[in-house]
Amino acid sequence: MLRGCAGLLRSWALRGPKRGRSFSSEVLHVDHSLPNPSWNEDMRLLFDQFMKKSEDGSWKRLPSYKCNPPERIEDVKIFFPDAKLLKEQMSQAQQFPRSLGEGVGFEYAMFHNHVEDRTVCIFQGGPHLQGVPGFLHGGAIATMIDSALGMCAILTGGIAMTANLNINFRRPIPLCSVVVINCQLDRVEGRKLFVSCNIRSMDEKTLYSEATSKELPLPLYVVCLNLLWTFLGLGVVRFWVCFCFDLVLSPTNAQKFSILSHAKNKLKVFLSITGREALAKIY
Amino acid sequence: MLRGCAGLLRSWALRGPKRGRSFSSEVLHVDHSLPNPSWNEDMRLLFDQFMKKSEDGSWKRLPSYKCNPPERIEDVKIFFPDAKLLKEQMSQAQQFPRSLGEGVGFEYAMFHNHVEDRTVCIFQGGPHLQGVPGFLHGGAIATMIDSALGMCAILTGGIAMTANLNINFRRPIPLCSVVVINCQLDRVEGRKLFVSCNIRSMDEKTLYSEATSKELPLPLYVVCLNLLWTFLGLGVVRFWVCFCFDLVLSPTNAQKFSILSHAKNKLKVFLSITGREALAKIY
Repeated sequence: MLRGCAGLLRSWALRGPKRGRSFSSEVLHVDHSLPNPSWNEDMRLLFDQFMKKSEDGSWKRLPSYKCNPPERIEDVKIFFPDAKLLKEQMSQAQQFPRSLGEGVGFEYAMFHNHVEDRTVCIFQGGPHLQGVPGFLHGGAIATMIDSALGMCAILTGGIAMTANLNINFRRPIPLCSVVVINCQLDRVEGRKLFVSCNIRSMDEKTLYSEATSKELPLPLYVVCLNLLWTFLGLGVVRFWVCFCFDLVLSPTNAQKFSILSHAKNKLKVFLSITGREALAKIY
Repeated sequence: MLRGCAGLLRSWALRGPKRGRSFSSEVLHVDHSLPNPSWNEDMRLLFDQFMKKSEDGSWKRLPSYKCNPPERIEDVKIFFPDAKLLKEQMSQAQQFPRSLGEGVGFEYAMFHNHVEDRTVCIFQGGPHLQGVPGFLHGGAIATMIDSALGMCAILTGGIAMTANLNINFRRPIPLCSVVVINCQLDRVEGRKLFVSCNIRSMDEKTLYSEATSKELPLPLYVVCLNLLWTFLGLGVVRFWVCFCFDLVLSPTNAQKFSILSHAKNKLKVFLSITGREALAKIY
């Protein structure tokens, strides 16, 4: 009986059965941070070394996806007033470092150490990342640095956005070679996070680049204001109604876990968007 | 008779007829800095505005290509001792900002003003450049900044390499929007070039990012040392033998111009490579 009522309420809240199913259905992702045939011997060797380090739990491999799940795009449509533009273009959107073909662009895997506040990225730059003939483009190096430093900041200090990026290019990185990007949290000043990294060869003897970054976490007042505004939106009311019913009425723990995980992702997207808006207001 | 002898000498020097032909044959390039169907109205409008400014010669549109011509790859093989690696991978190499598909990646055109030492890049960031949902990835912004500042430095101060890049991300750039990157030469200290840029919206009201860059031109002693070393290589001896014969014996001015242009490109590639090596030695 309770389940029947819940079903009715859910269908009212969702205004359609499709959206209701998406809470418990699993979205299939391809994790691109796993070895593929384009990885050379050095890359595989480094990956295996870090996977071995991960066995005792001190290091953790971070998955990486090419596309945002449909829910994420829906979230963007809710949080942005200019949904027309997003509707047309968000279906094509891909995460930049993963948008080039396998083996020709950015091949990388990241590992994080929660105890030492360190993130390591192993990176093989493919032939489509060329700048000066035979070497990686400075922008390709900057892209990997921004991705790795951003990930380090997020994992150590919460959701943050890059406000400043300062790179010293010490030596050119040959195309198709494998390098290691070592990132660490240097210090925290108020709500600002200062992270830095260096790019070295596999044997650690050659220093290719060094970089520092200032990452700005989400200001609380913007979170509160945005949450207040967001709760007035029907889309979010729908979401919370569905979330509560789904969570309470799911018969198995696996389903409950899936719903919680989905809600967590939704919150992450929301925070990342409000973070960008926050940055725009601060600077 | 003289032409017959020249032909014999040339075939000896080249050790094969294919290479000989490449001097006078024209390599076809597609210039990607021209409008294509993926450009939106704003992008076309800006392009037309700058093309109009170019009519009196104060501004000049800069062409942009995806691949290096085969000669350039040959040059790399001559100048690098580790030719095995390059032989395998250079055939696949593409200029990074041009390696994504039409409309989904970097759509841009650059214009340069020789009198004011300014370079302007109009840029439409496609849906495959996404970072936070709905916005451009910081690395994609850094890539365009590096490309535009590098071009500004090369056109104002000669062949140079980026030694430092410092970016302040002021506001997030929406995916698929059009922005303008305004670059200028700030000052010259010794042999170092200091260039800076800002990224603004089309109406110039919104400031998205600001950046400064230190560009290091080619140190002369490295050029001399490398030239000395290079002249001992058979590949370069071959090149100069062919160049002299082709230039002297070409019947038309058009052919002579083509040979000179080819030699100039060869020298440019050589200088750019030695520049990278020079950077590695300085830092």
